[in-house]
Amino acid sequence: MPRHPNQPLLLTPGPVSVSRTTREAMMTDRPAGDVEFQEDLSFARRYLVSLVGGGEAYTAIPLPGSATYANEGVIASLVPDGGKLLLHSNGVYGDRLVEICTHLRVEHSVVRTPPFTPPSAELFEQMLRADPGITHVMLVHCETSTGVLNPLEGVAALCRAYSKGLLVDAVASFGAIPLDARRLGFQAVTLSSNKCMQGVPGVGWAVVHRQALENAKGQCRSLALDLWDHNQHMDRTGGFRFTPPTHVVAAFAQACREHAAEGGAHARLARYSGNWQRLVDGMRQMGFTAVVPDRFASPIVATFREPTHPAFSFQALFDGMKQRGFIIFPGRLALADTFRIGCMGDVTEHDIGEALQAVAETLAAMGVTQFGRDEVALIDRQ
Amino acid sequence: MPRHPNQPLLLTPGPVSVSRTTREAMMTDRPAGDVEFQEDLSFARRYLVSLVGGGEAYTAIPLPGSATYANEGVIASLVPDGGKLLLHSNGVYGDRLVEICTHLRVEHSVVRTPPFTPPSAELFEQMLRADPGITHVMLVHCETSTGVLNPLEGVAALCRAYSKGLLVDAVASFGAIPLDARRLGFQAVTLSSNKCMQGVPGVGWAVVHRQALENAKGQCRSLALDLWDHNQHMDRTGGFRFTPPTHVVAAFAQACREHAAEGGAHARLARYSGNWQRLVDGMRQMGFTAVVPDRFASPIVATFREPTHPAFSFQALFDGMKQRGFIIFPGRLALADTFRIGCMGDVTEHDIGEALQAVAETLAAMGVTQFGRDEVALIDRQ
Ligand SMILES: Cc1ncc(COP(=O)(O)O)c(C=O)c1O
Ligand SMILES: Cc1ncc(COP(=O)(O)O)c(C=O)c1O
Repeated sequence: MPRHPNQPLLLTPGPVSVSRTTREAMMTDRPAGDVEFQEDLSFARRYLVSLVGGGEAYTAIPLPGSATYANEGVIASLVPDGGKLLLHSNGVYGDRLVEICTHLRVEHSVVRTPPFTPPSAELFEQMLRADPGITHVMLVHCETSTGVLNPLEGVAALCRAYSKGLLVDAVASFGAIPLDARRLGFQAVTLSSNKCMQGVPGVGWAVVHRQALENAKGQCRSLALDLWDHNQHMDRTGGFRFTPPTHVVAAFAQACREHAAEGGAHARLARYSGNWQRLVDGMRQMGFTAVVPDRFASPIVATFREPTHPAFSFQALFDGMKQRGFIIFPGRLALADTFRIGCMGDVTEHDIGEALQAVAETLAAMGVTQFGRDEVALIDRQ
Repeated sequence: MPRHPNQPLLLTPGPVSVSRTTREAMMTDRPAGDVEFQEDLSFARRYLVSLVGGGEAYTAIPLPGSATYANEGVIASLVPDGGKLLLHSNGVYGDRLVEICTHLRVEHSVVRTPPFTPPSAELFEQMLRADPGITHVMLVHCETSTGVLNPLEGVAALCRAYSKGLLVDAVASFGAIPLDARRLGFQAVTLSSNKCMQGVPGVGWAVVHRQALENAKGQCRSLALDLWDHNQHMDRTGGFRFTPPTHVVAAFAQACREHAAEGGAHARLARYSGNWQRLVDGMRQMGFTAVVPDRFASPIVATFREPTHPAFSFQALFDGMKQRGFIIFPGRLALADTFRIGCMGDVTEHDIGEALQAVAETLAAMGVTQFGRDEVALIDRQ
């Protein structure tokens, strides 16, 4: 019997499951110019800035759409004509930043590293030394396609030493992995309304250094994604310039209240870490292998190798899990024959325990059991 | 006593009120890759194409965000380097198209006309004759800042005669004013998930001629708004390339089902026209003057002059209406001293009757009565 008949638990890197109360914030049609809506917006903006300890020096700007829009908005707004962006990629989301630059015709260079281990900060230093034309660096903090955490501290230190503008794609980490604006000194960090913030998807956000934004006035290559323009309008009027996704924004304010009530990013990290450990322990006990070494893994999502057992198929695992009320995710990238189980969203260790039970049942139904450490045994279906 | 205690009726040009069942479609967290979600998406795409009678020649592409994104996506995707866009403006939304072109650095020229009457098609012909470099023309169908309907038929005929690509901002009209792709021959038309389609806000859509889109392959100035790229991905995989606003999309599919159940665009136009007539009649009877001559007005929104009565204030009208469960809108543009009341959304003639009653009560409470035709009388508050 499914766990949640019409409400499966999403164990994916996004969209993630949100709380019932967050969804219920969408049950009112609200006028965008009204005081209640603008209070929610203003609270959410302040809350995001407070999460990075940004104080008066930073501002939070919502870009309706998705987190890719926030990444594109940050690049299109902050990297000027004549500037050059150093990108790093070890996965799908690093690659997407390259694609954004190609479309925007923003000058850039790319350093690529293999998917399962993070790059060294020295590699970035070599690039910065070799090309003094570089003005900005953008790093994907947690590369969701693998779960690898990239070396943000080290790259931030280099950006300070070499006076480069630092842009951070923290879409998969913001809200769970604490980020300190003062210490890292980034110009901008991007996030999703969904993911670790646990609002419903539909808004990308950028938290931006006000002075960097002011320097970028008038230079954005897009009206829809012009961070400077949206920020000045919002600071001045308290509202959005274009029709906002009112329901999604209301849900996001509720999600922020629940984030605070849980105890902020530290508490959320503790819960996700508990989920991740429970998951990885349980999966290993069944014989699965995690792809990313534990010391490089983030507690956001875990990637597992598919068993080489002849009776195994990802589709059968997916279907069996879905039947039991859980949604999991296929691998991406060069990661053929892997699959991912997310640890974020409105999910507890208890939920993960139930999901592990569902994995075990599904494997048994497939006739896959006692595999692992490259030993595979086929037993009869009962 | 308020009509809807925590659920005011939005009588604005957007966001508009939607049905309870449309909001309730947001009460499930759905995985974006799942069959139920993709069926909703595919249904909505086909439904929008069918509304313009586009058949196999057209495709519908959602751009999460708002309708401005769809306008920017259409311009950034379809007007090539070396192309030139002729724009017309007689209001806020025409002006916004100009701003989009400036940001995108798309070559354009602009013909401006006064706000209260539509331009003649001849004006466009003069422009096309004078500048053979023009490759595309973009027209705002219904200019929401006044409610004026611009001459789409005439401009479409010219575009066919002069072989120019026609782009239409139908954000305020799509779903209520029937549009025929075969007859008008547009390359693209844009709409909002909200407005006359009555979904919740959060997605802009473009319905695009497939051949024009194919010709535009690889030329978009934005990744986030690359219509060609989104369309090929969606046709191929059945899903979005970026994390979609799953709740908003589910609500939109429900809104499309309800649009069809009501009887399509003709039925919706009939309902809105009824609302508009009831509203304008009732307001005139109280002494108000409509700004736009009836023959140029669309049944989407009506703009009224503020009474010159000394006891009148828009803020008091707004507050009194809100207290009674109705949200109205201040004027925009050069339209100081006007206000707007919307006729779209999940609104009936009966609702408009109640709103008129609320206007009357609010005026009485203000001490404004027996005004109109520039005669104003101040009577004592009772
Ligand atoms: C690290 C990272 N960056 C960017 C994105 C893109 O976000 P969206 O899909 O909301 O556009 C994602 C989404 O999974 C992500 O994990
Ligand atoms: C005619 C027209 N065009 C464009 C827009 C912009 O749409 P959005 O506010 O959803 O970005 C509107 C919104 O009111 C409109 O009425």
